[in-house]
Amino acid sequence: MSRTFALPAIWKRMSSTSSTGTLTYHSKPLPSKAHLHGPLSDNLFPKGYVATGVHCGVKKPTALDLAVILSTSDRPTSAAASFTRNAFKAAPVLVCQEVLDRNEGRARGLVVNSGCANAVTGKQGISDAWAMVKSTDGLLDPPPSHSQPSTLVMSTGVIGPTLPIGKITSAIEGLKGGPLGSRFEDWEKAARAFMTTDTFPKLRARTFKIRDKEYAIAGIDKGAGMIHPDMGPAAVHSPSPTSGLHATLLGCIVTDAAVSPTSLQTALDYAIDRSFNSISVDGDMSTNDTVVVFANGAAQPEEKEIDQETDWEGYEVFRDELTSFAQELAQLVVWDGEGATKFVTVNVEGAATFEDAHKIASKVSTSALLKTALYAEDANWGRVLAAVGSIQGLTKPLEPARVNVLFVPEDGTPPLPVLVGGEPENVDEVRAKEILSEGKFEIKIQLGIGEESAKYWTCDLSYVSLRPFFSKFLPGGV
Amino acid sequence: MSRTFALPAIWKRMSSTSSTGTLTYHSKPLPSKAHLHGPLSDNLFPKGYVATGVHCGVKKPTALDLAVILSTSDRPTSAAASFTRNAFKAAPVLVCQEVLDRNEGRARGLVVNSGCANAVTGKQGISDAWAMVKSTDGLLDPPPSHSQPSTLVMSTGVIGPTLPIGKITSAIEGLKGGPLGSRFEDWEKAARAFMTTDTFPKLRARTFKIRDKEYAIAGIDKGAGMIHPDMGPAAVHSPSPTSGLHATLLGCIVTDAAVSPTSLQTALDYAIDRSFNSISVDGDMSTNDTVVVFANGAAQPEEKEIDQETDWEGYEVFRDELTSFAQELAQLVVWDGEGATKFVTVNVEGAATFEDAHKIASKVSTSALLKTALYAEDANWGRVLAAVGSIQGLTKPLEPARVNVLFVPEDGTPPLPVLVGGEPENVDEVRAKEILSEGKFEIKIQLGIGEESAKYWTCDLSYVSLRPFFSKFLPGGV
Repeated sequence: MSRTFALPAIWKRMSSTSSTGTLTYHSKPLPSKAHLHGPLSDNLFPKGYVATGVHCGVKKPTALDLAVILSTSDRPTSAAASFTRNAFKAAPVLVCQEVLDRNEGRARGLVVNSGCANAVTGKQGISDAWAMVKSTDGLLDPPPSHSQPSTLVMSTGVIGPTLPIGKITSAIEGLKGGPLGSRFEDWEKAARAFMTTDTFPKLRARTFKIRDKEYAIAGIDKGAGMIHPDMGPAAVHSPSPTSGLHATLLGCIVTDAAVSPTSLQTALDYAIDRSFNSISVDGDMSTNDTVVVFANGAAQPEEKEIDQETDWEGYEVFRDELTSFAQELAQLVVWDGEGATKFVTVNVEGAATFEDAHKIASKVSTSALLKTALYAEDANWGRVLAAVGSIQGLTKPLEPARVNVLFVPEDGTPPLPVLVGGEPENVDEVRAKEILSEGKFEIKIQLGIGEESAKYWTCDLSYVSLRPFFSKFLPGGV
Repeated sequence: MSRTFALPAIWKRMSSTSSTGTLTYHSKPLPSKAHLHGPLSDNLFPKGYVATGVHCGVKKPTALDLAVILSTSDRPTSAAASFTRNAFKAAPVLVCQEVLDRNEGRARGLVVNSGCANAVTGKQGISDAWAMVKSTDGLLDPPPSHSQPSTLVMSTGVIGPTLPIGKITSAIEGLKGGPLGSRFEDWEKAARAFMTTDTFPKLRARTFKIRDKEYAIAGIDKGAGMIHPDMGPAAVHSPSPTSGLHATLLGCIVTDAAVSPTSLQTALDYAIDRSFNSISVDGDMSTNDTVVVFANGAAQPEEKEIDQETDWEGYEVFRDELTSFAQELAQLVVWDGEGATKFVTVNVEGAATFEDAHKIASKVSTSALLKTALYAEDANWGRVLAAVGSIQGLTKPLEPARVNVLFVPEDGTPPLPVLVGGEPENVDEVRAKEILSEGKFEIKIQLGIGEESAKYWTCDLSYVSLRPFFSKFLPGGV
């Protein structure tokens, strides 16, 4: 018996050069992301917070580069945070951890600058981060005692240079009795001041209920490159269960529910693993990744703080709301991934543990070969499979003959199986092309060896993804 | 005190579109790799082997796609192998493991086809791989018994399709009394038959001495994409110490030294971790990666088989020679990495363990952001540092204040420190550009917390790296 086939043309190496001796490529234009940002009703925003964004001078003239968010609640405001597990933590990360430690999970202020990451800046960096904290503490009413700093701090931008700290502290002091407000336009200014290579401000707000009482939650985040966060609480120095994962990703979530500091941190840890620790743009982990959450109890002054020890039911509703909201914010970063033209959900089902499913989803989400195939709209199940199989140290070993891979369209039409029971299907190429030519789809991987699942959100890898880094070879030289 | 700086132009997002609505890029032409292959003296090749490469019909007309290598030694030939740790092992990997198992480390033949990986091909695939083994066994003199198959098998190419097995076995049978030979031209044909997207055949040979006795070693390998091997011996089912690492990489090394089967496997394991398991092109692990080694004792018929239990000194010389030779072969794959314009050594020193150093070197070697910066000839130490710091679970935690990063030129002129004691240097940009504009350089990372080190070999990530996968958007449509 003899069967033959030709190598697909895609495998052929290119050799053409233009008359100038350089290679020329054409690529699709980037899809617009404008629909991902729009006005929100003022009454979706949680009570008891004020915010703004201003230009202080880190970035070029007029761009907003300093955000301040303050809790004005009469009740104690709980705060929790999750920080990059990178060994080279930037100064604001270290200072933010210390503020939370000293205050046992209470804080009322947040200050953020963009344009400079204040990372790898030695003692000067630490001193500058503290100066931002102290200046913002001066905006709090009543002001905290000197030994009890109550502001969290984050920075994003270039690694290496020190901050123009004089300009920053002057701008913060200028906010006294100034433009801080609680309307959409105030929050939007704050969101714009978070941006670096982001193409749109990332701001969301919604309301939710716990036992028929209404609360609100709002959040801002930023990130487009160096995105593959692996964050954890400050106290954890042991390897994470999802170690090996790896933005500057910054996020701030505020709610007017009342939650105890411990339970706020526990809920955040749970949410982070299922949101910000489950996204990838380029597979690289930043030195500055930080997500903070505040809960000020301003919505229902008569309700006690939710705590998992005394009110599991209330806690669980809050935790799941926080997780869902964090996922919405995290996904905005993937949509805005540098050069991304596709938004892809990698859904691993049937694993023995969440950690196993998460490890596999992470690897598939960072496969350079798969990401280039997705840009080319090629349903390359071989690359999916090679990535799945490359993960070592799973709780329960993979059984190749049980594995299914499906491409799931966004529009609700039937999914396209490409691998069933470990054997390739005769794939309808026209249908595959239909699904992959959409901006959004899911790759479902069914392992068939357990009950646990995990999702990851990733994007494709296009010429444009690389363009910011190849400036000197590009016409126009940006 | 106030310090300001502007965002580098490289951070700006691009927005220009051509009149046709597509984006146009220009990139440097790929450097020629022609100098990496040339004729070798016939007498560098080990005694007691014959080889050839022929066209059997897996690939398009005339391209060589079937290699056979046979030991003709009168003494027993030892064989050892290292296989991909991917869970979706291709049929030839499974069959090759079984042949070695059944023969307790003895084998005399190798058969390799290119053009089709015989991966994810179910029972048909296993049957086809055995057919290749049996046919090649028929070329051995004397032929092995039916219960003692003595040929190892490897395949590389597209995942999914089954082999045109009739054409393959006919071609093997056609070699009886045919063109197999021991001259350079015979080996070169074999090397060409290994190739898929490779741009040059990868063949090396040299001589070495153990206690003043002369031996020869020769080898062939192939690989250009899906290259980030993590291989181990067949018996090891536990996670590798370097787990998380991830070609089709195929390699065959032959020597006329005499080495016991056990010691040949031990030496190969040591060599693989320091050679083929220390290279990366795109960070993706293949389902077919296999490296085999044969030792037939034909050079010095009177010498006993080297064994680490009875002759550590002889073993150590052989092991180190095998390691150095495997490194030379492995590096050829990085030189030929799809789209690569730079050959970069990542050298991590001062780690607590080899495994710690190896994990860090692997991560730095796969950072998409660093690899694009290297193509752009940007000495971006921030990206090096972010990658180093992202590794979790080290034996001994990193101490940021002890870390140095240097760019080391190939020409022996002084290295350029970019980070010393965890703080950025004032980098001479002209000098940095000089070093990075060379095709070959080293990134040295000194951790300062131990005595162990590991090297990794990687390449940059260029537009051309992606081109084979974007065919439909390219003029000419290859």
